[in-house]
Formats: sequence, structure tokens, C-alpha cells
Amino acid sequence: MDATDEQDPGTRPLTAADATVGALGELAVLARVTRRLPSGSPLLGPGDDCAVVAAPDGRFVVTTDMMVHGPDFRWAWSSPEDVGWKAAVTNLSDVAAMGAVPSGLVVAMAAPQETPVTVLEGIADGFRLAIEALAPGIGVVGGDLSTSATFSLTVTAFGDLGGRAPVVRSGAQPGDVLAVSGELGPAARGLARLFRDGVDDAGEPDAARVRASGADTDPDVGRQRRPVPPIADGPLAAAAGATAMLDLSDGLAIDAGRLARASGVTLELDVEPALDPVALHGGEDHGLLATFRPGASLPGGFRRIGVVRARAADHGVDLVRGGDAVPTTGWDPYADWDGAAG
Amino acid sequence: MDATDEQDPGTRPLTAADATVGALGELAVLARVTRRLPSGSPLLGPGDDCAVVAAPDGRFVVTTDMMVHGPDFRWAWSSPEDVGWKAAVTNLSDVAAMGAVPSGLVVAMAAPQETPVTVLEGIADGFRLAIEALAPGIGVVGGDLSTSATFSLTVTAFGDLGGRAPVVRSGAQPGDVLAVSGELGPAARGLARLFRDGVDDAGEPDAARVRASGADTDPDVGRQRRPVPPIADGPLAAAAGATAMLDLSDGLAIDAGRLARASGVTLELDVEPALDPVALHGGEDHGLLATFRPGASLPGGFRRIGVVRARAADHGVDLVRGGDAVPTTGWDPYADWDGAAG
Repeated sequence: MDATDEQDPGTRPLTAADATVGALGELAVLARVTRRLPSGSPLLGPGDDCAVVAAPDGRFVVTTDMMVHGPDFRWAWSSPEDVGWKAAVTNLSDVAAMGAVPSGLVVAMAAPQETPVTVLEGIADGFRLAIEALAPGIGVVGGDLSTSATFSLTVTAFGDLGGRAPVVRSGAQPGDVLAVSGELGPAARGLARLFRDGVDDAGEPDAARVRASGADTDPDVGRQRRPVPPIADGPLAAAAGATAMLDLSDGLAIDAGRLARASGVTLELDVEPALDPVALHGGEDHGLLATFRPGASLPGGFRRIGVVRARAADHGVDLVRGGDAVPTTGWDPYADWDGAAG
Repeated sequence: MDATDEQDPGTRPLTAADATVGALGELAVLARVTRRLPSGSPLLGPGDDCAVVAAPDGRFVVTTDMMVHGPDFRWAWSSPEDVGWKAAVTNLSDVAAMGAVPSGLVVAMAAPQETPVTVLEGIADGFRLAIEALAPGIGVVGGDLSTSATFSLTVTAFGDLGGRAPVVRSGAQPGDVLAVSGELGPAARGLARLFRDGVDDAGEPDAARVRASGADTDPDVGRQRRPVPPIADGPLAAAAGATAMLDLSDGLAIDAGRLARASGVTLELDVEPALDPVALHGGEDHGLLATFRPGASLPGGFRRIGVVRARAADHGVDLVRGGDAVPTTGWDPYADWDGAAG
């Protein structure tokens, strides 16, 4: 990453006082990053070969997710704090989608040597803010700092099931109620706004245009940068007997298709309330899609959006609404990323 | 990565039949990689938002470690199988260094779109071979596939303490015996040979030179590519009452310095047997350094190399031998990587 304002829009312009990670070296960078991270209360925290985390019910859930500069974020559109926030909450959301309560994170981060250390500190701040907001009390219990020509960070998150069975994708039964918790659409609307107003004349991401266009203060752009998943609703759904659940990372339609295929059912969306196309197909809000036994009282922020139907033996449709099939396909990073970064 | 023989030395020359990950797309790549990985017997494996892993004693140990193309490996020197092997065993070694038995891994991998899928399959084979050899029965329980301009993989490994206290770095006491298990030096000798014989006239890594020079069949080069850490000796050391332990990733001297500082002691190496400089300073063998109470019977492959002394209050020397201080400094990826890949 070059030390230009354009590539670090979320903070003050970079100055000569912002030492690079290459100039500081690993130990100094580690010290500056670690002190900004929440420590939580693991049985043993960072500094040894491993951390030790409690798993009170004798099991733990685990998920790992990578964010790579280019396909997953642009410095011209997201501040370091935004990137840290998003890396944390996307993983916490996967933990919640099993019905588990987050119990800790580890983070591996690779930064080009010319990266100002303030960028890594900003990412740490984003982690801290996200955890304070959505999983208070847990810590970043370990990590790894490395160098790479391409900035990336990999988060691995853990959770405790509290004695309950994990809520998997494959448990939906005909007759179950289909329900969703969390926002549908703002993150995708925000991304569309950035692609429209946040690019220069050549179509490249441009932080100055984001500011000049007012996109910087658009609440939808805020949600694209810092989604707010309903983490607490995951364990609530499990306690309420959810039969299946997953995290809406790629959009309601695509993720509903995954749940439908895993469960061998067809999901039928209610005709009312109507869902606009961005609510149906927009990704990155990280809401929760779950199914509940008929008559169950929906917990937390869950609201009904449909019902589970038996899947026809001869043609397996994943998702229907008003008698019409709804397409359940989408973004593939290997096939679809155009190689751009910015 | 370009699809040239030079960059994929460990396998047959690439052909048009080797589809790239960009052409195949994420799902097809995932299917081809997953089927080569050991599944182990997690409570819930890949395919949902999280895996579920048993933690029989109500805790688990966790470590995460990244391998990045350039600073951490060169395709001209290591096959995909070698890279997968090394990524697995370096993490398993950290688990062992706590006295824990490995219980599972998750893997996040980011590959350039032009990467042949056979490279990812080779990495999966390396994982499988390493696990079969050193931690049989555990599985790769989850993961993430992404794309990046720079190839990297991040492994997060877990382990179970079997009811024992974790063996931390800070527990060494004056009078304890200092002991090591595993090889000292071959990985560093292998790397030195690659830097000497495995480069072209411009000093760039060159697979053809590796073969032509005979370095390809040098056992030390084999250890650099596929270190064989004494994983089973970690839990044995814990059971034998080890007071402190860590994984020798950066070399005996550097890592002994870490243990000495964490414990507030000075480590004194025996004068006999003499350790040659590469045994003392060479990294990447991933042996185990541990301290035991005086008179303890050393388990597994551990052999005595010294003794723990009280640290002088006025000048804290980490490591001494025959009355002379031994330097305990070394490689820093942020400061020392020269930016080369190959």
C-alpha cells in the first residue's frame, strides 16, 4: 500500500510520523497492535505457542474467513477501522449462525512492508469496536503478523454452544416457518453507491469522489463498511428450537438456496411483504436466515418471510415466490474478481 | 503464479489439462481440494457456517500461522505438497509445545486466479501426508478459499490438553534441566544449500538448478521442505512434568532467549556435547525446547543440553555457554524480507 491519502481515506492524511511496518519491525508493530485489541479473559492469552480458550460444554464451533485487498475490500472505500470491523463481524456472524455464543478470535495479518503501522492500529481499533458492540467480553486471544505483497487478514472465530445442538443448514422440515433477522439490502446498496459515486473517470475507486459525492455519510455506505449482524439472535434462535439456520453473507436468495438444498426442501417466500430485488439478492448484511417449527414464537429480531415446502421429487426448485422460481446464483471470487484493487 | 515448470518443480510439468482456479470457479475448486483432505472425525465437519470440534477437557489450545509466497516460501524451491506439509506441521508443533494433542485444523487459502487447480490439490496432499505422519486421525474441519494477487495460506490448529495444565514458556526454575527433542540444523542447512545451489546467475530461485546440482535429493533440503517435528513428544513432556516448553521455530538460540526472558532465568548450555553454529542458530526444524525438574526422567526424544540458572539481577543474560553469552537475535519478516518471491 502506498502512503497516500487516497488509499487511506478513513483517517487523517498520512504523515512522515507514520512509520512503516518494515521500518519498525515485527516486535514493535506487534506491541502497538496488541495493546489496542480487546484481551477478553481466555485461560491463556497471546504470547505463548498457543492460547487456551474455555469450551465449557466440551465442544467448540470454529469458522475461518479471509479478507484480501482487491477482491474483498478497497482502501479508497474502507478505512482500516472498517476493514477490522468487517473481518470481525463476518466471522462472529458465522458463529451466531450455529446458535453459538462467540468465545474468542485469532487474527493472522499480512501487510506490505511499506504499510504505515497506523493502518494496522486502525484495523485493531475496528476489531475492538466491533467486539465491544456485538460480542462484548470476548478477546483476540492470538494471532500472527507477516508480510506480503498483498494485504490480507484471516480471522478464525470460536463459539460455545451452551449445551445446545448446533443449528445446521440441513434441518428444515416442510411446514416450518422461514424467518430472517437483521437488515436486508443496505450493504449492497452502499456498495452500488460506491461503484457509482466513489470512482474516478477511469472507473477506479477514489476516496476523494466518495467524500465529494456525499457517499461518505450515506448510511448504506456505512453498512457496507461496517455491517451490524444480529449476533445475539443466533443463540436465541437455537434456544427457541430453530430447525435450520445460516448466515446471509451472499444475499437472501443465494443463501436460501443453500439452506433449501442442504435440507432437501423448497423455500416459499410470502407474497407480502414484498422484498425488493436488493433485499433479495444483495449480500454482506450478515443477517440470519432460520426455520422454526410451525407455531413457534419467533425470538429477538426474527420476522416471518415464508414457509418451508416439500421439494418436488422431479424438479428441485430451491426458492419460489408467488408460484415463480427465484434464482439463487451469485458472486464467485475465483471466476468473477476482475483483478482490481485500489 | 505462472503455469511454468520452473514455478512448480515438485510435480510433473503443467499441461493445458491443468485448469486454473479462475476458470473452474470456487465450488469446483473446493470440491477437488476437499476430497483430498483428511476429514478426521469432528462432531461436525465442513459445509456449514462453522465446524464443531470436541474439547473433552472443557478447554482447547489454538494457534494460527500464515505462510506467504515470497517471505515464507518459493515455488521454485518447494512443491505444493511441501508447502501444505510445512503449513500443517508448523502449526501442529505449536499445539504440541503446549503439551496438547492436536484435535483439528482449519485452512484459509488465497490463490491468484491463474493458479492451476493442481497446485491447490498438491497443497491438500501435503496436509494429508503431514497429518497421516504426525497427527493421525485429525482432520481439516473447515476452511476458506479466496483469491489474491499473492498466494498465501493461513492455518489455525487446535489441541486438547487431556486434563493437564498447559506448558507455558514462563515456568522454568533455576536448577531445572534444559532439554531438546527433534533435529537441530538440517532445515537451515537445506535452506543454505538452496540459496547456494538453487539460484540462477542473477541469484533468483531456479528449480532447474536445484535439480542439476543434486540439491533436490539432499536430505537437508528435504527437511527444509518438510520438517518433521516431534509432535508426540509435546504431550509426553507435559505428562513428565515439564516446567516450560516452546517450539523451536526460529532456532535454538533465539527461542531459548524467549523462554529465558519469559521465565526470568538464564539458560546455560552444556559445554559437551558441543553444538555447531547451525544447530544453535538454524531455524525451521520445529523441535521442542523444554525444562524439567532436576532428576526427572526425560521422555520420548528429549536429551539434556543444559541447565536453568538464576538470572543475575543486574545484567539479564538469556543464554550462556562456557561462561560466554550466546546471542539470541534473528530473522524479522517485516524488516528483513527483501521483497523477492520466485
